[in-house]
Amino acid sequence: MIRLLEGGICNTDLELQRGYYNFRGTPGHEFVGEVIEADSSDLIGERVVGEINLACGTCEWCAKGLGRHCPRRTVLGIVKHPGAFRELLTLPERNLHRVPRGIPTEHAVFVEPLAAACEILDQVRIPAGARVAVLGDGKLGLLIGQVLKAHGSEVHQYGRHKEKLRIATQAGIDARVARKSPQAEYGWVVDATGSSDGLRQAVMMTKPRGTVVMKSTVHGSVALDSAPVIVNEITLVGSRCGRFEPALRLLRTKQVNVASLISEILPLKNAAIAFRRAATPGVLKVLLQG
Amino acid sequence: MIRLLEGGICNTDLELQRGYYNFRGTPGHEFVGEVIEADSSDLIGERVVGEINLACGTCEWCAKGLGRHCPRRTVLGIVKHPGAFRELLTLPERNLHRVPRGIPTEHAVFVEPLAAACEILDQVRIPAGARVAVLGDGKLGLLIGQVLKAHGSEVHQYGRHKEKLRIATQAGIDARVARKSPQAEYGWVVDATGSSDGLRQAVMMTKPRGTVVMKSTVHGSVALDSAPVIVNEITLVGSRCGRFEPALRLLRTKQVNVASLISEILPLKNAAIAFRRAATPGVLKVLLQG
Repeated sequence: MIRLLEGGICNTDLELQRGYYNFRGTPGHEFVGEVIEADSSDLIGERVVGEINLACGTCEWCAKGLGRHCPRRTVLGIVKHPGAFRELLTLPERNLHRVPRGIPTEHAVFVEPLAAACEILDQVRIPAGARVAVLGDGKLGLLIGQVLKAHGSEVHQYGRHKEKLRIATQAGIDARVARKSPQAEYGWVVDATGSSDGLRQAVMMTKPRGTVVMKSTVHGSVALDSAPVIVNEITLVGSRCGRFEPALRLLRTKQVNVASLISEILPLKNAAIAFRRAATPGVLKVLLQG
Repeated sequence: MIRLLEGGICNTDLELQRGYYNFRGTPGHEFVGEVIEADSSDLIGERVVGEINLACGTCEWCAKGLGRHCPRRTVLGIVKHPGAFRELLTLPERNLHRVPRGIPTEHAVFVEPLAAACEILDQVRIPAGARVAVLGDGKLGLLIGQVLKAHGSEVHQYGRHKEKLRIATQAGIDARVARKSPQAEYGWVVDATGSSDGLRQAVMMTKPRGTVVMKSTVHGSVALDSAPVIVNEITLVGSRCGRFEPALRLLRTKQVNVASLISEILPLKNAAIAFRRAATPGVLKVLLQG
C-alpha cells in the first residue's frame, strides 16, 4: 500500500476520461509514493515509483522479463486496476523501484513517461552520433528528444509551438518549427506527434532502409501509404512502456531536465481542475500533489 | 545487349498496364536472356539474368552495395528504362548474373521474384525452426513460403485458393484456407496478400514484439490501426527487391520448386494474350518465350 506523494497527468488519462479503453474508476499511472504497508518491511517508509503493468509472473513473457507484454496483465489506472490519483494505491512489490535520494519527487514523477522514451533505445539500435528526427513537441516528444540527446544522437526536434520547442533548445537540441519537412533525410525518425498525419510525415522523412519509431497512439485507423514503406524498405517499430532503470539513471545523473516540462502543480483534491488544465492547449505536465 | 529467351509476367506489369507508376514503353523485368553484345567478350553467348535496378554506381547507397536504393536509379521495365518483353534488351554488365548450367531457362526466369522473397532473410533475422505465417497464395506468397521453408522455418501458409495452396502443400508447407485467422500467434508474419486488408490481418496474427514483413504493394493508402502495433510493440518491415545470389543458389540446389508456379508459356508475339491470361483469376505465372 502506497501513499500518493505526487501524480502526473498523461494524455492517456485525458483519453480515458473521453471514454477510450473502456476504463472506469480512478485513473493515474504516473506517480511517486511512500510505502505504507508491505510484506517486505524494509520497503516501508521508502519513496517509490512503480511499473504500471501488473503481470502474472508465470507466463512465457514474464519469464523473458517482458511482463509489460504479459497477456494476463492489468495496468495501473488503465486496464482493470485502480489508478494512482487517490490517497492510497496498491501495487505488487515487484513493480516498485526505490527513488534515489538525489531525485526530487516532482522529477521522479516523470520516471514512467521517461521510461517509455528510453524504450526506443531498448528496441532500436541507434549508433552514437547518428542524426535522428523527433516529430512532436508535446510532453513525450520533449522527453524523447532529451533521451536521444543523452544517448549521443544529433537530435532534430520538429514541432509547432515555439515555446515548447524552446525547452528542447535549452536542452541543447536543434529544434525546428516544422514547415516543409525534409524528404528521406534521416536514418531514424520518431513520431511523437499524437496526430494521425504523423506517421505519413515520418515515413517521408526517413531514408531508405531507415527506421520510424511509432510513439503516437492515435485512436481509430491512420492512413498509411504502404508504397514508400515497401519501396524504401522502411522499418516501423511500435513502442510503448519501458524499463524504469534507465529512466531513474538519467534523472539521477541530471542528463534529462524534466523541471522545464512542469506547467502546474495542484493538490489532489483539485484533480478536476487539474484535468481541465492538462487538456488546455499549450499546457505541458500538470502534477497532482497527494 | 541481350536477346530475350524467356520473360515472366509479374503483377507489377499488370499494374503498369493499368497506368500505375506512369510508365510508358516496353514492360518486363523478369527475364532470362543470351548476351549478344558486351564490353566483356567472355559474357557473349552466356545465358544471364539481370538485376533490375540500374544504379549510378557512385552514391552512398551504391558504395554500400545497395544500388537497389540508389536515388538516381532507373528500373528495368518500371522506371525510365525499357523493359525485357522484346527481342533485344539492354542492361549494364554489372547487373548481370550468369545462369548455372543446371538451371533450366524456365526456372531461371523466377530469379527476380525469388530474390524479392529471399530479401526477407536479408532484412529480418528469423531463427531456424521458428514458426512463420505467410499470408497470401499468389506467385510471390508461394515463393516466400518455399524460401522460408528452405531456411528451416515452420511455415504456415494462409490463402484462399485450394489449388494454389496445394502447391505449398507439395513443397512440404502447412497450408491453410484462411477462415478465422489466429490472434497473436506468430513471431513473424509475412503479408503477401496483395490486399489492403492484409496488413491489418498480419498485425493481428503477430505476437507482442513480433515482426510483420510487408510484401503487398497496395495502391493508395491502407488503413492501419496503430494501437495494436504500439501496444504490442510490433515491428513492420517494408521489403522489396533482393540480391540474386541466394535465389540462384536455391534454384541450383532445387530447394525451391518454381515449375509448379508456371501456368502457361506463350510466344513473345502473343504478349497481349499472355497479359490477359496473367490477369485471369486463378492463373499463376505466365511466361513469354523469346
